[in-house]
Amino acid sequence: MPLPFRLEVSDGTARSGVLSTARGDIETPAFMPVATRGVVKGILPGALKRLGASMILMNLYHLLERPGLETAERLGGIHAMFGWDGPILTDSGGYQVWSLSESVSISDEAVKFRSPYDGSERTLTPESAVESQSRLGADVAMALDDCPDPKAGADRIREAADRTIRWAKHCLEAARRPDCALFGIVQGGTDLALRREQASALSAMAFDGFGIGGLSLGEEKSSTWAALEALDATLPREKPRYLMGVGEPTDLLEGVERGVDLFDCVLPARVGRNGGFFTPDGRRQIRNAAFRDDASPLFGGCDCPACAPESGSADLGLPARKTPWSRAALHHFFRVGEMLGPILLSMHNIRFLLRLAASAREAVRAARFAAFKAEFTARYRAGE
Amino acid sequence: MPLPFRLEVSDGTARSGVLSTARGDIETPAFMPVATRGVVKGILPGALKRLGASMILMNLYHLLERPGLETAERLGGIHAMFGWDGPILTDSGGYQVWSLSESVSISDEAVKFRSPYDGSERTLTPESAVESQSRLGADVAMALDDCPDPKAGADRIREAADRTIRWAKHCLEAARRPDCALFGIVQGGTDLALRREQASALSAMAFDGFGIGGLSLGEEKSSTWAALEALDATLPREKPRYLMGVGEPTDLLEGVERGVDLFDCVLPARVGRNGGFFTPDGRRQIRNAAFRDDASPLFGGCDCPACAPESGSADLGLPARKTPWSRAALHHFFRVGEMLGPILLSMHNIRFLLRLAASAREAVRAARFAAFKAEFTARYRAGE
Repeated sequence: MPLPFRLEVSDGTARSGVLSTARGDIETPAFMPVATRGVVKGILPGALKRLGASMILMNLYHLLERPGLETAERLGGIHAMFGWDGPILTDSGGYQVWSLSESVSISDEAVKFRSPYDGSERTLTPESAVESQSRLGADVAMALDDCPDPKAGADRIREAADRTIRWAKHCLEAARRPDCALFGIVQGGTDLALRREQASALSAMAFDGFGIGGLSLGEEKSSTWAALEALDATLPREKPRYLMGVGEPTDLLEGVERGVDLFDCVLPARVGRNGGFFTPDGRRQIRNAAFRDDASPLFGGCDCPACAPESGSADLGLPARKTPWSRAALHHFFRVGEMLGPILLSMHNIRFLLRLAASAREAVRAARFAAFKAEFTARYRAGE
Repeated sequence: MPLPFRLEVSDGTARSGVLSTARGDIETPAFMPVATRGVVKGILPGALKRLGASMILMNLYHLLERPGLETAERLGGIHAMFGWDGPILTDSGGYQVWSLSESVSISDEAVKFRSPYDGSERTLTPESAVESQSRLGADVAMALDDCPDPKAGADRIREAADRTIRWAKHCLEAARRPDCALFGIVQGGTDLALRREQASALSAMAFDGFGIGGLSLGEEKSSTWAALEALDATLPREKPRYLMGVGEPTDLLEGVERGVDLFDCVLPARVGRNGGFFTPDGRRQIRNAAFRDDASPLFGGCDCPACAPESGSADLGLPARKTPWSRAALHHFFRVGEMLGPILLSMHNIRFLLRLAASAREAVRAARFAAFKAEFTARYRAGE
């Protein structure tokens, strides 16, 4: 059963549609908060849903280590264990094998590596990666990809892309639940011809959608956008496209402009934990001494639990509070190491990205995406 | 205007009443969660209120350092700055001067010490301690006490107790808001005659209630209880008594039995942050491997946000969830360093103490406190 995706509106190459899963619909473009080890750090699943999240991302690589496949299954799967009843997309671990593991050896059959948790040997095959995601309970699983170091040179980039295609076939043959969708992953670095070739090969396979991997890893932004344009012209229009690991606010809009439907990124939570907060006028740092006595909210007009806790009571399921958290209070929390600081800034930043994706969606549907993007980007950059 | 306290029921020497403040009533016996630097670590003020907290405690000593008196005043006081609109009791800093400061020099006029934050010199006088608490917005301020090292010997214990009495007079003369109540603090170590003498002297002064300081600092429990019995017989029955820093579950009941009305302790949050959780059968450690695959809640019958999130949705203002957080999920959070673990266990433990105090209150009012205490204590100790 293919994953139903209904492309409803186009505005130039920007798109808007609805991706349906057994656990709910995702209105696209959409941003997926990252719950690496089962939850978004510090944020209760209910609060996350009421921030506006529809689908969230978890990482097979980390979940296989802890809590482990058997434990997660005994606890009823990742939805039950982690209290999230909406759709979950799981990443296959290809990226983590490259970025986190030691002693990686890779063949057409499997990738072997040492666990960064305890140093013992681990093996992932295309089949086991998909089967494990399905057993964890994923609504959307990702094919295992060979994710090359972007600086490794053209030969390695091609080798990895070709292996990703060979693995893709095995992924499709793996045992998986009928309600677990499967996305292929396009590799190919910034070589546009290779990207097109990969996209064509994957498009001929029975995938429910396509991840775009191997981008936003330090390459020039112009190369990133050129690769997205090449893929937009090659990937089937009727299937969803997911730009993996992208979530800087202006980058998200660049992706939407080039036909991307889904995004994920740890950025909003990571920035928040370190005291950064997004505003329409760029990113700010709450530890800045200028905020010590500042009674205003992070920014006026924000409807997150930190900036608009009263509306948050009804909409976000969060405690009522008559006034916003002031920048001064949040500055204080960071200054004394109180974890409500990171928590409130993470919620603010995640809400910022979710709302940005929702605004992009509205703009596409009103056929004014180009103006929306230009206006947001100019203001955001002017403030940085 | 004295702080209204209505003693309603006695059951032996255990008591139950209502302490009224401009920001709400506190039904006693009551446990006060500790919001040292403005918030209980990791817990939003609304969530805390819906856990059942009525009055919370903040520390003058820490708040004077950060955010500082002027900043807190500019932000509208500690209620506005930290989003808690219920009553706040502030501690005067006497205990923190002893336990946290370097280079302490103490005279009848003032205590001087070095700030543990930046090493610079600080001065507290009985007058400034009370005035600062009032300016911060405290509903109940504590007199400045000279808190001696309990091992310092009889001479130092007596010196500190006598100075605390002399300071008490100055505290009562300090400028303070009419709606800011003031409690004296009884020192005197485990010397029962000295405790009685101190309590008599303070009872003759216009305090709204009495803190019992200098206990639960490593002395034999039998000495603690003997001191409480001496004080119960000496302090005026019509004013509230607050046993400072006590919050171990069975100790709280020992205090209630001996006429104590108020308690505070960092224990539930601190234990929770370190993976400990209270159950009627004693304290447990969630990191224990036995909990790795345990699908049950921390304990059945608990109505905290971790154990009963669904009822929590209505009662506690927390996100709806169909099933309790399993011990396995909480074990996982601690194993991978996810802060939801400490947050959920802190909420569980604080709810446990708040509910224990509420149950003690019910038992007193039903004239069955002795049986309640015996039953709770036997079961709790049998499980340890």
